[in-house]
Amino acid sequence: MEQTKQKSKTYHLDTIGKVHRDKHGMYLQIDEPYRPALEGLDGFSHAQVLWWFDKSDDEASRSTTKFNPPFDAPILGVFALKAPTRPNPIGLSTVRIVSVDMASGIVMIPRIDAFDGTPLLDIKPYLPSFDRVDNTRVPNWAAHWPDSMPEDGISLDPGPN
Amino acid sequence: MEQTKQKSKTYHLDTIGKVHRDKHGMYLQIDEPYRPALEGLDGFSHAQVLWWFDKSDDEASRSTTKFNPPFDAPILGVFALKAPTRPNPIGLSTVRIVSVDMASGIVMIPRIDAFDGTPLLDIKPYLPSFDRVDNTRVPNWAAHWPDSMPEDGISLDPGPN
Repeated sequence: MEQTKQKSKTYHLDTIGKVHRDKHGMYLQIDEPYRPALEGLDGFSHAQVLWWFDKSDDEASRSTTKFNPPFDAPILGVFALKAPTRPNPIGLSTVRIVSVDMASGIVMIPRIDAFDGTPLLDIKPYLPSFDRVDNTRVPNWAAHWPDSMPEDGISLDPGPN
Repeated sequence: MEQTKQKSKTYHLDTIGKVHRDKHGMYLQIDEPYRPALEGLDGFSHAQVLWWFDKSDDEASRSTTKFNPPFDAPILGVFALKAPTRPNPIGLSTVRIVSVDMASGIVMIPRIDAFDGTPLLDIKPYLPSFDRVDNTRVPNWAAHWPDSMPEDGISLDPGPN
């Protein structure tokens, strides 16, 4: 566990599509070159969606390490929060899959806690053997939160859009 | 749902630390500037760790959309798999937290399915109200897999190191 001096490396990401919220509902639209990668996703009820907090991709947000969250909790480090303020502004949402259309690249979902136009980075299948934890402990400030995801997932607060 | 022609944007990531697997066990070591961001993480039993599949950060892996996985399953799109071969090679592991030491930036964990030296991108708390799904469906090829994560998490296969 020696402290080693190491230069930070940077990596680059490409967007694979966008989140949409419009009169058709909420959906992920995958860009044409990536649509074949959706093959077999419809076998899963849920997916983990990685996206870019594009409204927090600035030096001030990315250099913030602690803050006072907008709910009843003490000052916390950003690694103890899911907020957009973090060194690498990657969002992670578990979503329920309603349908997958490979031709149009559209994955319909009931809800997601990301704005219209949010850039998408990745989709991974929700596999309970990797992703569902039976026995968890959370801090007192979150002790009254539900013990599993709402059936239709999480939306933005307040309201569906 | 009109098809809109859009130019792909790229985003940049900084490493926040590394995965270590050595005589001390398995742990995450967070770089000095990011250590304050660990405040409060010890209130959680589990975390989601985002990391970079640095061995798959090449043009061939990043442009692969489908392949035949190394287990008994059909050819699948990369968004229906958790494999390193994907457009944005971001890994996601749920880990159990054993201890958090803010001074050294060390988060001890029993297991992780990432190699020694893997670059870390983010840590998020495991919040059952966002991350635990009660009723899931998986394809036939995964139907015999466990219905929750092993108590100590997932390691590399085979063996602990």
